[in-house]
Amino acid sequence: VKDLNLAQVSIIGLGLMGGSLAGALHDHCRIIVGVARRQETIDVAVKRGLVDHAALDLSAGVREADAVILATPVRTILSLIDRIGPLLKPDCLLMDLGSTKSPIVERMALLPEHVQPLGGHPLCGREVSGIDAADPRLYRGKPFVLTPLSRTSVDAMAMGVALVEAVGANPMLLDAQRHDHLLALVSHLPYLVSCALVATARKSALADPLVWATAASGFRDTSRLASSNVTMMTDILLTNRQDVLAALDAYGAQLSVLKRLLVDGDERGLRSLLTALCDERDSAYRQPS
Amino acid sequence: VKDLNLAQVSIIGLGLMGGSLAGALHDHCRIIVGVARRQETIDVAVKRGLVDHAALDLSAGVREADAVILATPVRTILSLIDRIGPLLKPDCLLMDLGSTKSPIVERMALLPEHVQPLGGHPLCGREVSGIDAADPRLYRGKPFVLTPLSRTSVDAMAMGVALVEAVGANPMLLDAQRHDHLLALVSHLPYLVSCALVATARKSALADPLVWATAASGFRDTSRLASSNVTMMTDILLTNRQDVLAALDAYGAQLSVLKRLLVDGDERGLRSLLTALCDERDSAYRQPS
Repeated sequence: VKDLNLAQVSIIGLGLMGGSLAGALHDHCRIIVGVARRQETIDVAVKRGLVDHAALDLSAGVREADAVILATPVRTILSLIDRIGPLLKPDCLLMDLGSTKSPIVERMALLPEHVQPLGGHPLCGREVSGIDAADPRLYRGKPFVLTPLSRTSVDAMAMGVALVEAVGANPMLLDAQRHDHLLALVSHLPYLVSCALVATARKSALADPLVWATAASGFRDTSRLASSNVTMMTDILLTNRQDVLAALDAYGAQLSVLKRLLVDGDERGLRSLLTALCDERDSAYRQPS
Repeated sequence: VKDLNLAQVSIIGLGLMGGSLAGALHDHCRIIVGVARRQETIDVAVKRGLVDHAALDLSAGVREADAVILATPVRTILSLIDRIGPLLKPDCLLMDLGSTKSPIVERMALLPEHVQPLGGHPLCGREVSGIDAADPRLYRGKPFVLTPLSRTSVDAMAMGVALVEAVGANPMLLDAQRHDHLLALVSHLPYLVSCALVATARKSALADPLVWATAASGFRDTSRLASSNVTMMTDILLTNRQDVLAALDAYGAQLSVLKRLLVDGDERGLRSLLTALCDERDSAYRQPS
């Protein structure tokens, strides 16, 4: 099947990302099948009309699929890739939504020849998780990175692009290593930055319980990512460790520059840098993204 | 005048904070007078009905006032305190909205005896600034710190509390030094954390222009404070330098703990800490604040 409209799409993992994808794809495929570990998740997915069918059993859920999308934490994706090959039809597209692409693409390269692998990562998300937070509009207008392998066929790539466009996202072709380097900077680092901020407040709150009472909207937004799903983030950090550590070092260097200006009371230098950063951010977010 | 309803309130500085305060106080005072440096600001404030009258001249704007509120950047507040005393009526309440309280309260202690000083700091704000962003609802439901001096009279304190309640905020009495220590942690530190994040992205973007194209909502929120008004923030950082530097050190230590866990690949330790931080933040924001 080359046409998405005629395809059965099976989505493995019905959390925020998988559940939202199921809902968004619903009217663009012949049939959407969901696979989840817990019966309650399946019940919600069916009740909300996000999937046509759902199964607890991986084999049953993917047997007839023309495209399978792995929407679990990264290390679960890796182990699914290892065992899903023999369960798939010839030329079945196997995509994923994982936030670290190099290890996934490396593992996909080992799949049986009859499978068509394609790495994927939608650049959207929220700090909430689970099927209850699923929203079919989640992907609209957002970049959706695709990391094809050298073995990925033209047809499989076309199906992947059609799938991305069907959910309203914008396909963005990117090399897996470049993706991981970039995401360490713009996503994995901000998560750790948020966590360190909460850790600082948490420790200070032991000495002064008013810490949380005085934390206003600025703190809330800067610390928002610390509320992300821990299993998802642990997998990301451990599978993108080198890039994340490099990003942490780059961040530490910038923090030191700011600290030095403050220690020196260098008003002119401080004002000049803060102005440049304010302008940089404002112009970045003024551009349509 | 002891009754806010019968009072003339003059607000010096009609930016986001002053303009919003004027609008919020409008129906709770006899008359609201605004003082701004630029005629365009005055025109907007009058046109939007935020003030009854407005003046470019400080002396004319505060001469008849029963309460004067300084709503400028911190170092402008300090210089206004130095020269406003002789311009004020006996028992006039002099408040401010500055984000660093110790230097302001120290300077207020030197005011002529006929003036009633009271430090103030509403714990709200936005990264936008200027009269166009003014919103009379800005203070509703937010904590509003008051830092009385030993010389502040009971009547002046009561007027300050009435003013805070009139704009819908919740008065929170706090010692100036404790305020500055807390705000360094929950407000000034998050600003620098955001700035360092933008600085890291900015430097990385020189090597890979896709940095900004891949920055999604997580980066946007974590970096939001970097778009704050630079003059306001420079004044805050330079007038709360010791507390901010201590907060930066505390933050650096927490970032190092996270880095160490990642360097060691200590999955159990990492997951345990990330879970504790996620829980801490969630429970802090679940409480009514």
